[in-house]
Amino acid sequence: MNTLPQELIRFCRNTPLANAPETALLVLKLSLLDWFAVAIAGTNEPASRIIRQMLTAESGTPEASVFGQTTRLPARAAALANGTTSHALDYDDTHFLHIGHPSVALFPAALAMAERQGSSGAEFLMAALTGYESSCRIGHWFGRSHYEAGFHMTATAGTFGATLAASRLSGLNVVQTGHALGLASTRASGLKAQFGTMGKPFNGGMAAANGIEAVQLAALGFTSTPAALPSFGQAHAAEMPATETVLADLGTHYVLEQVQHKFHACCHGLHAMLEALSLLVQEETFDVNHLKQLKIQTNPRWLKVCNKPDPKTGLEAKFSYRQTAAMLLTGIDTGALSSFSDALCQAPNVTALRQKITVTGNTDLSDTAAKVTLVSTNGQRCIAFDLEAPLPLMQRQKRVIRKAETLLGADHAQAIWREITDLTQANNLNKLLQTVAKIRA
Amino acid sequence: MNTLPQELIRFCRNTPLANAPETALLVLKLSLLDWFAVAIAGTNEPASRIIRQMLTAESGTPEASVFGQTTRLPARAAALANGTTSHALDYDDTHFLHIGHPSVALFPAALAMAERQGSSGAEFLMAALTGYESSCRIGHWFGRSHYEAGFHMTATAGTFGATLAASRLSGLNVVQTGHALGLASTRASGLKAQFGTMGKPFNGGMAAANGIEAVQLAALGFTSTPAALPSFGQAHAAEMPATETVLADLGTHYVLEQVQHKFHACCHGLHAMLEALSLLVQEETFDVNHLKQLKIQTNPRWLKVCNKPDPKTGLEAKFSYRQTAAMLLTGIDTGALSSFSDALCQAPNVTALRQKITVTGNTDLSDTAAKVTLVSTNGQRCIAFDLEAPLPLMQRQKRVIRKAETLLGADHAQAIWREITDLTQANNLNKLLQTVAKIRA
Repeated sequence: MNTLPQELIRFCRNTPLANAPETALLVLKLSLLDWFAVAIAGTNEPASRIIRQMLTAESGTPEASVFGQTTRLPARAAALANGTTSHALDYDDTHFLHIGHPSVALFPAALAMAERQGSSGAEFLMAALTGYESSCRIGHWFGRSHYEAGFHMTATAGTFGATLAASRLSGLNVVQTGHALGLASTRASGLKAQFGTMGKPFNGGMAAANGIEAVQLAALGFTSTPAALPSFGQAHAAEMPATETVLADLGTHYVLEQVQHKFHACCHGLHAMLEALSLLVQEETFDVNHLKQLKIQTNPRWLKVCNKPDPKTGLEAKFSYRQTAAMLLTGIDTGALSSFSDALCQAPNVTALRQKITVTGNTDLSDTAAKVTLVSTNGQRCIAFDLEAPLPLMQRQKRVIRKAETLLGADHAQAIWREITDLTQANNLNKLLQTVAKIRA
Repeated sequence: MNTLPQELIRFCRNTPLANAPETALLVLKLSLLDWFAVAIAGTNEPASRIIRQMLTAESGTPEASVFGQTTRLPARAAALANGTTSHALDYDDTHFLHIGHPSVALFPAALAMAERQGSSGAEFLMAALTGYESSCRIGHWFGRSHYEAGFHMTATAGTFGATLAASRLSGLNVVQTGHALGLASTRASGLKAQFGTMGKPFNGGMAAANGIEAVQLAALGFTSTPAALPSFGQAHAAEMPATETVLADLGTHYVLEQVQHKFHACCHGLHAMLEALSLLVQEETFDVNHLKQLKIQTNPRWLKVCNKPDPKTGLEAKFSYRQTAAMLLTGIDTGALSSFSDALCQAPNVTALRQKITVTGNTDLSDTAAKVTLVSTNGQRCIAFDLEAPLPLMQRQKRVIRKAETLLGADHAQAIWREITDLTQANNLNKLLQTVAKIRA
């Protein structure tokens, strides 16, 4: 077997649309819809506005579209803006093998480069698919030690996925792609210490811009060393298991299918509980008026993260088991950003429900799992849910589309989804981009 | 004592020109002249041309001057281009506490920001002086472990010096400067694995551009965390001795004065030998025709790096004890780029001299030292030289100016030096920039 960079370069350059499994392509398209939805919804966040302000002042050749403005910017700048904007709400997808958010680095780079190059829809999809898959595999290669050392995988592994996708769209040959990966290796960075600040979404933008920059330089003849990616790993506390392990079944099995979409606009630690609870609420026998008590059990690590018992603000609500459970019990959409309001924290029916809810730690539960016990006048029902259990694909599609509808309105969400499903036939991305441009956040 | 970032912010924002020691200011000005000389001389190197090609295609608001073209670019782009260009020849200054090349990250950022802001000469000098000093102190803080782990200090520590200099010129307040340092912490990167490729000069450009980017974002209200710099250190194998140790005498003693300027256009491993030999050659009794043998002793690590016994090309000559010693013995200027030619490797008088030269390792010599023994018909003379021994300031000034004259021609070098020495009185940098713009490499 060749080295890891060599194998990924081959995979990303050579995989034709005909070889892409339908399920992998569908998941990629769902992630693309999800990414558009959270990016458009995040367009007016402070981090998004400021990064646009800097880049618009710089100005430059209009090569690629930017969320939130009609003026296009150089591809490198557009990638920086759109990567930041799409991660501003922290509502984008998560991949637990990659240990991060692949979409916010990958799509801004692939989209900007495809628009700049006038790529076809199929080329864009295949660059995104292979780049996304590579990003996940490189995340696996870096491993948990890299993440624990303080690095934000979204930014570091994300840079390499962005580079590979942009390399294909830019038509780089094998040697040039090697140089692009080498340059990406000296440019990749990003710390978890930024969490809770605008630096976190900035990390996504950096990764996307790094990919464009490395590819543009390599296309013009800039050189680097093919050994730079392993050197990056060595310097950055990566685990680097054998290439054979990390790249097993590359090209036939797509680990990207394991990506998780967020369906609740709040801390990830609350999601398993909300999924479990919504299964109970859907049962015919459920009636909130008969509720006597709701017992929530979760992995103890989350008690320090998202267990604000009586939140006062919308932001605090995003870190509260009791508030989000009460919201779900009263039929409020936890997938809508607007549901997380100060007012709802004070609503009498919600605060009354909160008093019936208890939260306790249970070390038997993994940190992706939760257990809820609903005690009502009709008796008691208990259910556990683990986020790691894969959602059936049709159900996932339905929920991603519903999330996009919640964030953008049904017409806009459906219009984008139509353009995405038509991409394999599209000569370029113009119709998709025009559809997106019509939407105001 | 405050934290290291707090202390450096205070130092960089508040130190007035009146508090700057004359010796520190003079060394800074010599480094600035040296930086201009190597940057202008490196303007047509492949890495310099390619980075300009990418950035000129991007175009944008004309804010700052770029070596090698009349069109100005956004400050962030100018810093990327000029940082790369000034490190392309690898002929810029070196600081052994910082373990890298502070000028190629610092000056491109400070110059671009000063031009963009219309800063006075004094403000530019003070931003550069305090930023340069901070860069060296942060390099000390990161320590050898950071360098040994694979990081190119020029790029990593360089980013923070560039950020602090640009922060002062941009008029950031204390809180904003903290955010700028935080953003720089998530953006800083750079691997030694790039050595020998265009990725090495690119690292200098990245650091300079990072500084501009972080400052522009912070000026617009972008946030980060003040704890990001220590987090960067933890994640990147930094030694991080106590703040008191690293910042001892900050503001009264300037470690930047220890910076070393390169006076020979070849591998650093040859410099101590060339310095020792030139002392012998200057002696009245020296006559190359009486030479019987020249014995060179060096630290054994250099034997693997720069001991090509019979080089055939100008590039190989840069890594050859015998060739560079023979050049010096025959009166050829080892400070001129043009001396390192294929032709000179074949010149009969030079190849004949090479046969009289032996090179051996000596573990008693540090890697900054060399010993030469000259055996002639008149007898034998032996001398050792260590680069760590400080050069008297007046001698240093003379040699830096002579180096600039060699690279740019006497008139141009003198004209730039005049503008630099006049900077404290200048309302802006226009005259300096115009003087530089007149020079074609």
